[in-house]
Formats: sequence, structure tokens, C-alpha cells
Amino acid sequence: MDRIRIGLVGIGKIARDQHLPALNQGGDFDLAATASRNGRVDGVEAHETVDALIAARPDIAAISLCTPPAGRFEQAMAAIAAGRHVMLEKPPAATVSEAEALAEAARAKGVTLFATWHSREAAEVDAARGWLADKAIRAVRIMWREDIRQWHPGQDWILAPGGFGVFDPGINALSIATRILPDPLVVLSAELAIPENRACPIAATIAMRCGTAPVAVDFDFLQTGDQTWDIEVDTDAGTLYLRNGGSRLELPGAEPMQGPNAEYPRLYARFAELIRNGESDVDLRPLRLVADAFLTGQPTPAPAFEF
Amino acid sequence: MDRIRIGLVGIGKIARDQHLPALNQGGDFDLAATASRNGRVDGVEAHETVDALIAARPDIAAISLCTPPAGRFEQAMAAIAAGRHVMLEKPPAATVSEAEALAEAARAKGVTLFATWHSREAAEVDAARGWLADKAIRAVRIMWREDIRQWHPGQDWILAPGGFGVFDPGINALSIATRILPDPLVVLSAELAIPENRACPIAATIAMRCGTAPVAVDFDFLQTGDQTWDIEVDTDAGTLYLRNGGSRLELPGAEPMQGPNAEYPRLYARFAELIRNGESDVDLRPLRLVADAFLTGQPTPAPAFEF
Repeated sequence: MDRIRIGLVGIGKIARDQHLPALNQGGDFDLAATASRNGRVDGVEAHETVDALIAARPDIAAISLCTPPAGRFEQAMAAIAAGRHVMLEKPPAATVSEAEALAEAARAKGVTLFATWHSREAAEVDAARGWLADKAIRAVRIMWREDIRQWHPGQDWILAPGGFGVFDPGINALSIATRILPDPLVVLSAELAIPENRACPIAATIAMRCGTAPVAVDFDFLQTGDQTWDIEVDTDAGTLYLRNGGSRLELPGAEPMQGPNAEYPRLYARFAELIRNGESDVDLRPLRLVADAFLTGQPTPAPAFEF
Repeated sequence: MDRIRIGLVGIGKIARDQHLPALNQGGDFDLAATASRNGRVDGVEAHETVDALIAARPDIAAISLCTPPAGRFEQAMAAIAAGRHVMLEKPPAATVSEAEALAEAARAKGVTLFATWHSREAAEVDAARGWLADKAIRAVRIMWREDIRQWHPGQDWILAPGGFGVFDPGINALSIATRILPDPLVVLSAELAIPENRACPIAATIAMRCGTAPVAVDFDFLQTGDQTWDIEVDTDAGTLYLRNGGSRLELPGAEPMQGPNAEYPRLYARFAELIRNGESDVDLRPLRLVADAFLTGQPTPAPAFEF
């Protein structure tokens, strides 16, 4: 199969930690250029903006956007309008309506749009989904507690409007939950702890339902020491534990299963497959749940936060 | 055609101001019972809860819910599960996912669900939609400014979580805008003024787009004196002014048009039509735009508010 020239937009932490290593593993893409206000990659043609990249390189068929969600809409619209296939980091946009407009624009233009959810590619997510498919769900507990200073050092945008706050990691949990649970999730109420000097929550609890089963969600951005990315599902056949962000699965009466992390290589393989099939993949359910939590949430003041 | 027995749930201000007069005009429905914690209607069988009404009256085929949105989900689910057709005041639920779950439940049960948007039934909305259909939209201004003390006296729920705050009237404007504008609306950013003793905004501005046209939204709950419920649309053929909540239309070079208010009689006529056709009508676009505004909005502190 022909290889695909790709442009990477937003050379920040997630690009260096995940996208560049995945693209350097080989696979279907050749990194042909980058666009970033500050970052660049040694040996790769660098532009300052996505518009400049698009204008300079009509041969680049695909654009991968890993800029922060606020502002990504205009970049993605420009790439789609120029006839490029587009892959979006999570969350795909700052609002649901932005993401829906991107999907519609890609459809009209006949290009591929891939709204990625990297946590769904964690090693044991598919196995968890398979096991739950024929179970009756009794209760679900989602605990996603990490240290913002460790994983997002100095990233002020994450607590600014459109940055999602603790829902930036939390949406990873919701992307897994919407993948593995057999019934839709419904947001009933939420509590949002918002630092007095920030716009977005630094911790949140959400009460949801899955069918008739209660779903308790606990997100925290201030957990030091051990980090927690766990989903527990009580069923008529015992309790499933999906731990470590989806990479470890414990099922009743079975040895724990644990696979290696290949989330981003799997995302890029899927993007290539979508391009070759002329398809898009834009599942906005995790984003809609976050919007619902903000809509119905009780804001509670929290102490000022500084990195 | 056979008349339809209906139960009205939530005997508060909107029920007395709008639903009861509409039902008393004749039309397709006979008000057979009410359910409300506090209110009752002279000469009509009264229950305290929707569950009690459903249990007592299997002959009541339709339920109209005009309780506040927070908590309406369980009531609507109970009515649908009991095989009753359901009409929802706006907004249809406290979250988008609740409303989607209701639509799915109604589909599975084979009953009618009607998520109403009463402002869409204002006299000149259809004419505005018709005029805009073949115009190029240049800019849109939405101004919805009213006095919360006049229209929602003592209704603390409206500023509590799930009460929508100024988006409770504002969603009426968005329901009209999504009906009359030819392209989808996209939320880009928002500012939300939240009183220090309340959970929901008492004023808001939203920056949206409709296609490539900018849409400026100004919602305010503290306007005394003249009240403003206006939408202005600049087009390639001049500016449309839709005023007074959709009841007055001014088009370039034409006499103003102004029709009488028949919003709620039209809603009940439409509900009867949907029931007889075995259809549902659940357009969640206005609710999704509100969720987007909360998601991406910059909260700004506002003075404490007391009625």
C-alpha cells in the first residue's frame, strides 16, 4: 500500500510523548512537516501555522492535530476545506457543536475525519467489552485520579475555558466506559470543584446511570503518590476490574490479563485504514457526557491552584 | 376523532399561565387528572405524584410534564414505561443524555415523545424561516433580556444545578434560531455570570457561528423596564428583525407582521397529531447548544442574587 504523507500540528507534550514515537515506529505514515508556534522536530520541515503548512505542501494528504481543544476547530476546518484527511486528539473540539460541524464538513468534502480516543486502544479494553456484552450490569464505579503537576506540568490551558480541567483525563475514562458498557450512559447530576483562580474543575463527581444501574464517577487532578485509573463493574457474574487506564483486566476466577501499551500506534493504523476505506469515525458520546456534567453540575469553590 | 385523556404533572406557574388555558380551549384533549406536590386544579382529580396518577388511571393515555427539568427524567421514564404518550415542557430534561435516553425508551416502548419548544410556535417564526431559507447569512444577533423577578418570581430552582439559569429563557431564543437559520449553529466560546450564592448564570454572552457568519448572543435575567426578546439577521437581502419572542417580524421594505399568541394551543394540537400518527418529535439541538455554552464558558463571579 502507498504510504501517506502526514503533517503533525501542535508540537507539545502529547506530540513528543506519544505521536512522534508512534509515527517513528514505521506504519503507514511519513511525517512530512510540522506546524507549531514554538515546537519543532529535528530534521522535519517546520511551519508556524496549519494554514502555512497546508499552503506549502499540497502533497500532504493527512493532518494530525494535537493542539489544545480550544482553537482546534478553526485548524481542523482549514485542513478539511483544503481536502486533507484529519485526525483529532481527544477531546475532538472545545464544544459538541464544533465537533458536529467538523463531521459535517468532512462528509461534505469527502475526506476522512477521525476523532480519536486513545484510551479505547488500551490493551484490555476490547476484552472487557467482550466479557460485559452478555452480563447484567448492577453498578459501575469509575475512579480517575491523577496528579496534574506530573502529567500536565505548566499547562495552564487545561484549566482555562474550553480546557475541560479534570475532565481532560476524565474523558478518557468516559471513552472507555462508553465503549465497554452495553447500555448508554445518562448524566443525572454532578459536583464540580473549581479553583477560585481558574475556569475549569480540578475535581468532580458525577452521578450517572447505565440502564437502571447506578454509575458513580470520581475524578481528581490532585492525587499524589499512586495514580488511579480504574473502572469497576458489578454484574450478575461477579465484578470486573479494569485498571491502569485499561491495560490490566481482572475477571472473576481468572488470572489477571495485562497487555503492552500500543495506544497511539493503533490509532495511526486505524487512521490509515479509515483513509483507505473512505470512512470517518466520529463518536462524540464521551464529549456529550462531559458537556452534560458541566450543564447540570453544582459548582463548588476550591482553593486557588498554581502549578 | 376520539378525544384523548391527559394528565398534567406539575401545577405551578407555567401550568396555570399556559397549559391549563390551552387545554381549556377545547382541542383534542380532556384534562382527566393532575399530579403535583402542592398545586391542584378545581374540579380535576388530583394526585401527589406521577406514579400515583399512572397507577390510578390506566385510561389516561397521555401525560404532559411541566415540572422543573431537574427531576423530570424519572417522571418521564415512569410514564413511558407505563405505556403513556409524553409531552415535555422545555427544556426537555436536565441533561442531553437524559433526553436521549427518554427518546430511546419511547422508541422501544412504541409511544409518542414530544419535546416541546413553545417559542417555535410564536406567530411569525415560520414566516421568518421561510424568508431566510434562500438568503446568505452575514451576521446574527440574539438578544434575550428579561426580568427574572417578573417572570420567575421566587423560582429558586431556576438558579440551582440543572435549572439552566438565564438559559431557561435563553433556550427559547436558541429554539427559534435553530428553527429559522438555514445552517447549524456552532458554539465557540461563552462568558457566564454566576451569582456567588447560586449555581447557574444570571447573564451570559455566547460567540457562535452559523456557517461562516458570526452569531452574537446576549442573555440577561436582570433587565427591568422594557423586555427584549429579539433576533436580528443580516443577509444579502437586508436585515430581518424578529421581535417580541417571535411574534413580530420586520422584513426589508415590507410592513411589519404581527400575529396573535397561540403557542400552547399549537403545541397541544401537534402533540395530538404525533400521537395519532404514531410519531415522536425530539429535537435536542437547543439543549445541546446550552450544554456547549456551559462546557466552554468562562465563569465570572456576579453579586449574590435574591428574589
